[in-house]
Amino acid sequence: MPQHPFDWIDAQHQRQLAAGLVRTLRPRPADSALVDLAGNDYLGLTRHPEVTEAAARAARRWGAGATGSRLVTGTTALHARLEESLAEFCGFEAALVFSSGYAANLAAVTALTGPPGPDGTGALLVCDEGNHASLIDGCRLARAEKAVVPHADPAAFRKAMAAHPGRALAVTDSVFSVDGDAAPLRALAEACRESGAALLVDDAHGLGVLGEGGRGALHAAGLAGADDVVATVTLSKSLGSQGGAVLGPAKVITHLVSNARTFIFDTGLAPAAAGAALEALAVLRREPERTTRVRAVADELHRRVTAAGLPAVRPDAAVVSVRAPSPEAAVRWAADCRDAGVAVGCFRPPSVPDGISRLRLTARADLSDGQVARAAETIVRTAPAC
Amino acid sequence: MPQHPFDWIDAQHQRQLAAGLVRTLRPRPADSALVDLAGNDYLGLTRHPEVTEAAARAARRWGAGATGSRLVTGTTALHARLEESLAEFCGFEAALVFSSGYAANLAAVTALTGPPGPDGTGALLVCDEGNHASLIDGCRLARAEKAVVPHADPAAFRKAMAAHPGRALAVTDSVFSVDGDAAPLRALAEACRESGAALLVDDAHGLGVLGEGGRGALHAAGLAGADDVVATVTLSKSLGSQGGAVLGPAKVITHLVSNARTFIFDTGLAPAAAGAALEALAVLRREPERTTRVRAVADELHRRVTAAGLPAVRPDAAVVSVRAPSPEAAVRWAADCRDAGVAVGCFRPPSVPDGISRLRLTARADLSDGQVARAAETIVRTAPAC
Repeated sequence: MPQHPFDWIDAQHQRQLAAGLVRTLRPRPADSALVDLAGNDYLGLTRHPEVTEAAARAARRWGAGATGSRLVTGTTALHARLEESLAEFCGFEAALVFSSGYAANLAAVTALTGPPGPDGTGALLVCDEGNHASLIDGCRLARAEKAVVPHADPAAFRKAMAAHPGRALAVTDSVFSVDGDAAPLRALAEACRESGAALLVDDAHGLGVLGEGGRGALHAAGLAGADDVVATVTLSKSLGSQGGAVLGPAKVITHLVSNARTFIFDTGLAPAAAGAALEALAVLRREPERTTRVRAVADELHRRVTAAGLPAVRPDAAVVSVRAPSPEAAVRWAADCRDAGVAVGCFRPPSVPDGISRLRLTARADLSDGQVARAAETIVRTAPAC
Repeated sequence: MPQHPFDWIDAQHQRQLAAGLVRTLRPRPADSALVDLAGNDYLGLTRHPEVTEAAARAARRWGAGATGSRLVTGTTALHARLEESLAEFCGFEAALVFSSGYAANLAAVTALTGPPGPDGTGALLVCDEGNHASLIDGCRLARAEKAVVPHADPAAFRKAMAAHPGRALAVTDSVFSVDGDAAPLRALAEACRESGAALLVDDAHGLGVLGEGGRGALHAAGLAGADDVVATVTLSKSLGSQGGAVLGPAKVITHLVSNARTFIFDTGLAPAAAGAALEALAVLRREPERTTRVRAVADELHRRVTAAGLPAVRPDAAVVSVRAPSPEAAVRWAADCRDAGVAVGCFRPPSVPDGISRLRLTARADLSDGQVARAAETIVRTAPAC
């Protein structure tokens, strides 16, 4: 008599329970009194009336769904306008919109790996060890050699590329999701150029937060529009919507259209999400002070929690990461904050590659000084003994 | 002097141009006079006013985006209601919603592969050779042995599973996207049970089209709710929205929440898409005749094109596949149809694993008999000589 095919799930569940690694979903209501330092709505645009009205308008005008792959019926003039606007805003030649940032990253990594060179040597993917899961999955899917190098270390990238005879693609987040620290983009680009390698940067946490008027980390580093640099972004953080995009030279975008599996075989982004992101971009162009505000809020959160002795990383963008002594302590700390009216993120394995659990605080441009002060006070007051 | 890092893209583009394999995006307007036999809006719900109003209402009430991972701030009571409704409608214990069907498939395949068994033997993934790209990518990402078996062949599944000492997961589409033919689900389930294997079925093209009132291929086969069967569906075809879901035993869904990377590390589905899908389900419950109508339209399209001598596969659901003599002929044929007012899908390599190009016609419940007759006449009239 064979075992039941899902018996192993029970056993794994027990192990994960014992290790404090079981997650549960907590559906939130539409309106909440909690101060939200957990979401990625950095600029406060998700609930902006112009943005939600644009979503509503797009659903009515274009339908609730895109109806198919963007290669079949799923590309509308609205998607094309969003792509033009995104590329123009961020300073790239062209853009391609996906149903998620995850899909955009899978597409960029796999399709830019390319075939082996004329001498038969395959491409090398060089990846920062702190890269987001979607970049890691892209590297797993790509048929290429991989080198995972120490975090934010251009010399390690340079060394890995120098040791490889064929083409190479360096892959990094611009702002790392867990600790909120920035990658050394200029030095990475220099290392790539010395080796004739291309650079792929996930700017999910940079768009709207870094660079002039929120044009992103690549723009800030003088790398936007370079012919050897490709960026990915999400529409679900600063732009308050859903989806992702790849930005780069027009020929790279053309190449993705015919070759990226998560583009070819996925349904196009829903019109409401495309319309909302397009409107959010318009608000951001008009109100660039949202970008300076979100960074000021992040700095103030960091100042207050470190002044109270908590171990927090200085934020390079909108994410403030505070270490917790254990997964269980992090979960309890986050629950205590919630009970006191402040929602904070709680990152624990496997979401943290180094195994260190954290509270993850995200700044928002629409928080008042009073909200920031009260939230920081709550986090400090509920902190576990270290 | 090193080569430019994207020079290989130019060379590949030239090769793909010569082979007729370059795709271009054709943005469509909001309103079109074309009869659409190319999209996957099988039940005609994408533009249904109750569905688009539900999308608009959800954007206003919940915001334009979910603001974060569903484990952080991205789960709303709206997502929970959609999951309850989907599970109840399809006859499964529980459901989990993703930002796309692609993401749902990556999640299900990778997280259900699981760790090696107590004897150290890893799991085996047994895959129909005609499976959708997202299932294939899930198998590539999973750390498991893989066996790709001939199309729709339960004996081949049985043989592969018998040869493997450890756990196994059989993976198949319910309705294959390219030819519109159905998998032998009952025989596959029997083969799995003999081997103690689990069965994972992508019902993207079955939901809304097959089974009582559109409850899907698993429901039709008496397999919905079985404790060794997991289904995935899309919200972007019959439900006219965007997103995907996994349906299965509650413990499988709980397992995915803590272990599926495309769930943990992706932003939650936008509220507008969740609201639209929930409303589409309500319309489908109220108007089950949409399901019988879309199948009648598919049968009529097939009857008319085969009566005129075209080589078409008898549809098991809403997709009618007609073979074309070459990629170039398929492209020309589709263009001629479009010029004559009918939008049809055109599948060519690499979207067709067997290398045979096709016109892909999709039935819609909201096409009139006259539209169906005129569309079929157009397809026949513009057909290339074989």
